[in-house]
Amino acid sequence: MSNDMTLAIDAMGGDAAPAMVVEGLSICKTKLPGVRYLLVGDERQLEPLLIQYPQVKDICTIVHTEEVVTNDDKPAVALRNRRNSSMRLAINAVKSGDADGIVSAGNTGALMAMAKFALRTLPGIDRPAIATYLPHRTGGSVMLDLGANVECDADNLTQFAVMGEVYARNVLGLEKPKVGLLNIGEEDLKGNDSVKQAHTILRDTPLDIDFYGFVEGDDIGKGTVDVIVTDGFTGNIALKTVEGTAQLLVHFLKDALTGSFLGKLGAFIAKPALMTFKKKMDPRQYNGAMFLGLNGICVKSHGGTDALGFANAVGVAHDLVHHGFNDLIKKDLERLMDAHSGEDS
Amino acid sequence: MSNDMTLAIDAMGGDAAPAMVVEGLSICKTKLPGVRYLLVGDERQLEPLLIQYPQVKDICTIVHTEEVVTNDDKPAVALRNRRNSSMRLAINAVKSGDADGIVSAGNTGALMAMAKFALRTLPGIDRPAIATYLPHRTGGSVMLDLGANVECDADNLTQFAVMGEVYARNVLGLEKPKVGLLNIGEEDLKGNDSVKQAHTILRDTPLDIDFYGFVEGDDIGKGTVDVIVTDGFTGNIALKTVEGTAQLLVHFLKDALTGSFLGKLGAFIAKPALMTFKKKMDPRQYNGAMFLGLNGICVKSHGGTDALGFANAVGVAHDLVHHGFNDLIKKDLERLMDAHSGEDS
Repeated sequence: MSNDMTLAIDAMGGDAAPAMVVEGLSICKTKLPGVRYLLVGDERQLEPLLIQYPQVKDICTIVHTEEVVTNDDKPAVALRNRRNSSMRLAINAVKSGDADGIVSAGNTGALMAMAKFALRTLPGIDRPAIATYLPHRTGGSVMLDLGANVECDADNLTQFAVMGEVYARNVLGLEKPKVGLLNIGEEDLKGNDSVKQAHTILRDTPLDIDFYGFVEGDDIGKGTVDVIVTDGFTGNIALKTVEGTAQLLVHFLKDALTGSFLGKLGAFIAKPALMTFKKKMDPRQYNGAMFLGLNGICVKSHGGTDALGFANAVGVAHDLVHHGFNDLIKKDLERLMDAHSGEDS
Repeated sequence: MSNDMTLAIDAMGGDAAPAMVVEGLSICKTKLPGVRYLLVGDERQLEPLLIQYPQVKDICTIVHTEEVVTNDDKPAVALRNRRNSSMRLAINAVKSGDADGIVSAGNTGALMAMAKFALRTLPGIDRPAIATYLPHRTGGSVMLDLGANVECDADNLTQFAVMGEVYARNVLGLEKPKVGLLNIGEEDLKGNDSVKQAHTILRDTPLDIDFYGFVEGDDIGKGTVDVIVTDGFTGNIALKTVEGTAQLLVHFLKDALTGSFLGKLGAFIAKPALMTFKKKMDPRQYNGAMFLGLNGICVKSHGGTDALGFANAVGVAHDLVHHGFNDLIKKDLERLMDAHSGEDS
């Protein structure tokens, strides 16, 4: 596959930036051959790091700026006052066409505000959504929205469904992804007005979407559907509940295994197997939240991640660019809009 | 402790009822000495079971009825047409004072509708809530609402907080329980209007509540607070996400341990430790959702549970009755109403 692409990297975003970012790109060099990077940040901090990681120097160009967005910056303030920040200049590189996508581990609210302002939403999308890949029993699914929109109407949810379906089909490579709406029961009469109306729209959609209907919280782990659609309030809480529960179980397991001699001995013998399990639980594997619905690829890395996690987030941006995700979405959105305007007439 | 109480049992509710129910009571006889039961259901089915479990015969009285609520009954239909059902008669026993509480593993919607209609809400409670005990790293917490109310305003959430706090203090025995509002961030400006307003009310409440502020999904497993307050839509999805994630991790762990010889050997040696872990994960341990805010104790068991899980749900009802939960709540609700009427004047 051809990797003729350039990604803009906010070198200053993240708790351990910029060192974590540059080290992350050194991992990307092997994993994503051919990709080039615009490394946006303070050159006085970046140049010594490029000496430390000479392999990264070959694949990147520094775009110097001293301004940064802090984690305490309110989105509106960042938008107004951080126009020369590493985050904003990295987004601008996508807008100008100098880069095909942008990755940042900085302030989520500021990143969304700036990306929305600079890149604008795709035609047919009222509001962008945050999406992530989640593992389940037999593979993985995509869930959205994860916090960009506290309240969503039926049209928002329908648009999220379209975007999630295109992602699952093209990026996850599923032939006929099943789409589900997260609700508190599978019966049609349950839930709030938005999910009930979205259920009707998706059931009757002229788009070639395999709509499963409502799913519940435990269907996320079961892999009942490939695309889980929800509002940003519920989605954010569900995602963090997954993370917290996973941590709790690992804690209980460690407690049980270290509490007795036989537990310790068994764990020692089963260490390779337990490492496989641990790797599957590693949140760095799933790092990289996608901002979908914008005129440009934008990926948010967890702020507390390390180089491996950051490299994974860069991989997520790469996959979206590589599969021409936004062009594919545009086609489905046009068909959705045509269908709706047909209904209105 | 004195267990001079009578619990009404819907003998016909649950996938494996009535056999599972009677077997469950045989477990209760040892765990909850002194408690008596009104066993409401079809005596032709129940009498042979009491021959099989003679120890249960001594502690229960059959209240005969042939009518049952099915899982397909819509709540409104059940309320209108199932007035002689085992579920309804069991609730009526609480209303008449013949029983101190009721436990059913039947149709949740019907149980809530009937309990609300027959028992009415406590003064100061606009809507009852469903609550459950959840384990975390260092103990357990209570979460509510879990699905009774799809949409909640700030007053509903505040009332849930009061009920959850009384439960945590008296039934869980925590001296100064911390109360948190589930949200998508810890900052004051995040979230929907209901949680933001409830935050203000709880921050300024004259009640002696240790209000922590907002918590996120991962705080459920961390045990950041002892009482997690949320609307029924979010709470139901969060609870089921906990269950689904726990099942997924156990699946991944089994997969890893059975995938190699060393994994199997290690697991064999560590079996007692893994059994401790498994027991901690056992959903039957946490079975028994409490309907809080009614003039009477009402507990819903999972419909698919077995005798051990049902016995646990009976234990939940026992604990609420034993601690005089409703009288304790009434006092705090009166103080809350006094404080509010003081504000209004």
